[in-house]
Amino acid sequence: MKKVAVVMGSASDLPVVEKAIKTLREFDVPHEVHIYSAHRTPEEAHALSANARKNGFGVIIAAAGMAAHLAGSVAANTTLPVIGIPMKSTTFSNGLDALLSTVQMPSGIPVATVAVDGAVNAALLAIEILAVSDDALAEKLAEKRAADTKKVLAANAEAEETYNR
Amino acid sequence: MKKVAVVMGSASDLPVVEKAIKTLREFDVPHEVHIYSAHRTPEEAHALSANARKNGFGVIIAAAGMAAHLAGSVAANTTLPVIGIPMKSTTFSNGLDALLSTVQMPSGIPVATVAVDGAVNAALLAIEILAVSDDALAEKLAEKRAADTKKVLAANAEAEETYNR
Amino acid sequence: MKKVAVVMGSASDLPVVEKAIKTLREFDVPHEVHIYSAHRTPEEAHALSANARKNGFGVIIAAAGMAAHLAGSVAANTTLPVIGIPMKSTTFSNGLDALLSTVQMPSGIPVATVAVDGAVNAALLAIEILAVSDDALAEKLAEKRAADTKKVLAANAEAEETYNR
Amino acid sequence: MKKVAVVMGSASDLPVVEKAIKTLREFDVPHEVHIYSAHRTPEEAHALSANARKNGFGVIIAAAGMAAHLAGSVAANTTLPVIGIPMKSTTFSNGLDALLSTVQMPSGIPVATVAVDGAVNAALLAIEILAVSDDALAEKLAEKRAADTKKVLAANAEAEETYNR
Amino acid sequence: MKKVAVVMGSASDLPVVEKAIKTLREFDVPHEVHIYSAHRTPEEAHALSANARKNGFGVIIAAAGMAAHLAGSVAANTTLPVIGIPMKSTTFSNGLDALLSTVQMPSGIPVATVAVDGAVNAALLAIEILAVSDDALAEKLAEKRAADTKKVLAANAEAEETYNR
Amino acid sequence: MKKVAVVMGSASDLPVVEKAIKTLREFDVPHEVHIYSAHRTPEEAHALSANARKNGFGVIIAAAGMAAHLAGSVAANTTLPVIGIPMKSTTFSNGLDALLSTVQMPSGIPVATVAVDGAVNAALLAIEILAVSDDALAEKLAEKRAADTKKVLAANAEAEETYNR
Amino acid sequence: MKKVAVVMGSASDLPVVEKAIKTLREFDVPHEVHIYSAHRTPEEAHALSANARKNGFGVIIAAAGMAAHLAGSVAANTTLPVIGIPMKSTTFSNGLDALLSTVQMPSGIPVATVAVDGAVNAALLAIEILAVSDDALAEKLAEKRAADTKKVLAANAEAEETYNR
Amino acid sequence: MKKVAVVMGSASDLPVVEKAIKTLREFDVPHEVHIYSAHRTPEEAHALSANARKNGFGVIIAAAGMAAHLAGSVAANTTLPVIGIPMKSTTFSNGLDALLSTVQMPSGIPVATVAVDGAVNAALLAIEILAVSDDALAEKLAEKRAADTKKVLAANAEAEETYNR
Repeated sequence: MKKVAVVMGSASDLPVVEKAIKTLREFDVPHEVHIYSAHRTPEEAHALSANARKNGFGVIIAAAGMAAHLAGSVAANTTLPVIGIPMKSTTFSNGLDALLSTVQMPSGIPVATVAVDGAVNAALLAIEILAVSDDALAEKLAEKRAADTKKVLAANAEAEETYNR
Repeated sequence: MKKVAVVMGSASDLPVVEKAIKTLREFDVPHEVHIYSAHRTPEEAHALSANARKNGFGVIIAAAGMAAHLAGSVAANTTLPVIGIPMKSTTFSNGLDALLSTVQMPSGIPVATVAVDGAVNAALLAIEILAVSDDALAEKLAEKRAADTKKVLAANAEAEETYNR
Repeated sequence: MKKVAVVMGSASDLPVVEKAIKTLREFDVPHEVHIYSAHRTPEEAHALSANARKNGFGVIIAAAGMAAHLAGSVAANTTLPVIGIPMKSTTFSNGLDALLSTVQMPSGIPVATVAVDGAVNAALLAIEILAVSDDALAEKLAEKRAADTKKVLAANAEAEETYNR
Repeated sequence: MKKVAVVMGSASDLPVVEKAIKTLREFDVPHEVHIYSAHRTPEEAHALSANARKNGFGVIIAAAGMAAHLAGSVAANTTLPVIGIPMKSTTFSNGLDALLSTVQMPSGIPVATVAVDGAVNAALLAIEILAVSDDALAEKLAEKRAADTKKVLAANAEAEETYNR
Repeated sequence: MKKVAVVMGSASDLPVVEKAIKTLREFDVPHEVHIYSAHRTPEEAHALSANARKNGFGVIIAAAGMAAHLAGSVAANTTLPVIGIPMKSTTFSNGLDALLSTVQMPSGIPVATVAVDGAVNAALLAIEILAVSDDALAEKLAEKRAADTKKVLAANAEAEETYNR
Repeated sequence: MKKVAVVMGSASDLPVVEKAIKTLREFDVPHEVHIYSAHRTPEEAHALSANARKNGFGVIIAAAGMAAHLAGSVAANTTLPVIGIPMKSTTFSNGLDALLSTVQMPSGIPVATVAVDGAVNAALLAIEILAVSDDALAEKLAEKRAADTKKVLAANAEAEETYNR
Repeated sequence: MKKVAVVMGSASDLPVVEKAIKTLREFDVPHEVHIYSAHRTPEEAHALSANARKNGFGVIIAAAGMAAHLAGSVAANTTLPVIGIPMKSTTFSNGLDALLSTVQMPSGIPVATVAVDGAVNAALLAIEILAVSDDALAEKLAEKRAADTKKVLAANAEAEETYNR
Repeated sequence: MKKVAVVMGSASDLPVVEKAIKTLREFDVPHEVHIYSAHRTPEEAHALSANARKNGFGVIIAAAGMAAHLAGSVAANTTLPVIGIPMKSTTFSNGLDALLSTVQMPSGIPVATVAVDGAVNAALLAIEILAVSDDALAEKLAEKRAADTKKVLAANAEAEETYNR
């Protein structure tokens, strides 16, 4: 199976990004984690993405906050699908800066953007992409969906018990 | 090759969405176009996405404006990757409503969101997804990148001619 | 009397939505509570709204956060009035995402939107709707208004006592 | 049948509000139109809403722009359901001022808010409210939904013809 | 001297509004405090402002949050200057709703809006208005300005001591 | 009668600011117009406001766009009431920059802010301030209100004629 | 004198960026113009900035729209001061995306951001930077300021003539 | 070496601004710190900037919150480069007011704006400006960049250790 690269701009992103890593593990999807900043280690970020396809990667997840250039600059050096997680910073605007910096990419270089701090969905989207041509993985995704549905229905059952007597 | 489904919520989305269709054609990627509204034709939208995988689709592109639920409701019924194009409406907020309605998906159901009115990038992202396991398609993407680079360098040459004498 | 359905997208919405339930109880308005997600349990949400009128419901209250599609997707399957409560999420934007995702419905499928986290008003609006043809209920609403007025006037009396001597 | 009052703050709101009037006519729902400003004719606005229930009204639609107080001040004087249409002004912010001024009502006085310039939906919501206890009207709403669905499917058929050959 | 009326929509506004009251006291400006809601006690709010001029008031300060209609509805019933304090609510948007609801008044009915939670400035503005024709009060304002300047210069001196050695 | 100073940051503000001048003329309120920029002619702006009280001014109206510092910097040099008109620029954000730059003044230096481009209301507010101690002027304001009310009622009569037959 | 590099992401930025070029010419400041995209020609953009200091440049101006990464990615490869011009795109949000993507740089890599479409100010800021150690250039800046002041005073004289007779 | 002036509008800005001072110290760049408010001590702020060049300053850093006029009013009185730090206030909007008040300067008077609360970057930008003609300082900046890169790579190494085994 192709691997998923998970890159984040700063170690401070780890508490959120770990949810993506945990999700990839749950699905037994091979992955590699890196902390590379678009601005402080541009060469490493460049090398990772420029060589990603030939190194066996299928998808790259990039998480960054503020003027979040990481996903876009990773995307500029590969034609693999790049998933951007806009990270909420504590300083300003609840992540609107990161959201717009990630999603508003110019024509030619797409970044597949998920919700602010949406690490689980970034991982699931990466898995969905790998599952396009992998029926076993698609099956696991369907099972995860069914499990999620069950959880909501269990919560519903409890709420019905509490409120609808 | 897996097909790409292109769904939009209203015929008024066509002038923008046509750029996605045109891009898919340029890459000879098989695709199907539909106008299905999440709210006015929920059953058709449901049927399309629930059956997409078994009908040979690999990716679904969904474009909608305002309280743009189409991509999310398509995503709720498939584990294929779903790409959302937030459409700028003329009435309000330059597409911020559609952007937030598309990108801020809850955990479990990702939508790969591109820029407001980002139809070309939606198509390129779909192609990138199909190209994960299709080297010929990946090659075409690299050629398109090279062509885009050439265009910028040609514009640069002209600007240098004009301004740097 | 017609019943009010109270649906929310997640158990985490309960602390806010309980204020709506409490208000319905104060008015002795029959109601049913459910936790159904537009994306994780679309079938149950669909069944609830598609059958609401014939099952004796008069109004549906739907609460959801982030890309809040629940109220809109409930509204797509019924011609009963649907009241949307945009829920503030902790992650982003103080509920602007949920507000725009709930209120900016396309022409044809209205959602009666109340303030962010406006659970009490959602219940009062539901009661007002039922009271259009129920004079006893209208009378209770008038009493509640009078009681609210009294509370403000009592606060005013206390403030006058404190500040206007 | 109960009547619908349609109030707007200024004659300049008419081009948008006329769509609500036209929709009420299509459903043969009795209605009355008034131009009353919350700030320039507060007494008339007050009289309209304070007497609305006893004058045979079932719902009030109020449209206003900028610091849109009309719907809220109408709602303060009646326990009938009040529907607010936030009007986009040309001066500022694409209607965000009117949207927040209309929807963010304090607890106790709900305003059922529709989309910015959402006049058709305001009328449909008013009709849905009257149809809670009027099966014939509910039937007409269902027919209108079916007609809307047909229109989308016709547009879809045309798009399929154009793009899916 | 003309009096200043200080009205707020809810007792929960007191912790902020008290700073306005304290400022009025520092200047020995006669004032009256009331808690009147535009929506829950519209009659009292109306009576206060309609009779304000003949009751010896020169300025009205009105503080409210969310869809803050109080200042505007007070202004609709008097030609005295009305100062609006937009109150930050805990629920949404850091007071943007109250700011826009207060400041974006339609032509004909001005509200003199100060910063979100700007209670001290509301009082100072009221005093400036009374001081237009009251040289003694103008003198006190000049002294307050001089005192404020001194405080900044003292802080500057301390900072110079700390950082510029 | 005290005079009103009308200052604007640029000649390009004149088309909007002229409405303030016209309103002052209608009320026969003496006034002076100046184009002084807070940044390009800081000395003239300073001199105007520092000497305004002794030169017979009672109120200063200041209009500026973008990072609108004019009203604040005028207010820093006088204890007369200063009214700020945030001007919408064509470049960005529909005037939100000017609104926030004008209204969010720090404690100690109030600016009485009106709506974006709210020139008429700025003039009316200035007149209201002068009318606090001028009953004849107050009477004229009441007449203007009555005239505005009549205009709304005339529009209402016409709408009733058109829609309520 | 050190040179100023003017880089923009797209030829469509030229109509705005030309104002910067024109300003540099007025001051006889040597400059070079390039069209290099952060995403489509990352290598050229990298080479320009990595070699800028040794190639005799003193400042780099970078203009880009949407998810405007150009200034930040240029800044990542040089310790010369980099000035960012956020470009308003026609598609979304009046340039808020470009403003936040340019100004919200993480600690370590500053970008000196000017107003949206603020090309003249970008050039003036570059000249101010070169003038820190160039008294003749500083003198020219002072003359330009004086000329700007004169223009405002001429506009003021005309306005006084028109309005203050 | 030219000195850097660090001015802030209020002592409450010190916890953030101290990071700028600390950075200047790390680079042994001579500097002076002042607390001068644009509105409460306009004369001192004016004197500082009007005399800055002849007093040996090369750059001025100005930090202010809310309607942040300090940087702009400092810039109006000097042709030295002025760097603005928009300060997040606790009251409103996470610093958007300060950001727009600082960055949206009119043509002719640039302010080099950094991120909200971006004190470290303000100092680095000041140092970059001084380093344009100071190779030793430029060398120190390059060393700081290299050190920052090392820190990211160390964090990366640790993350690789943790996640990529």
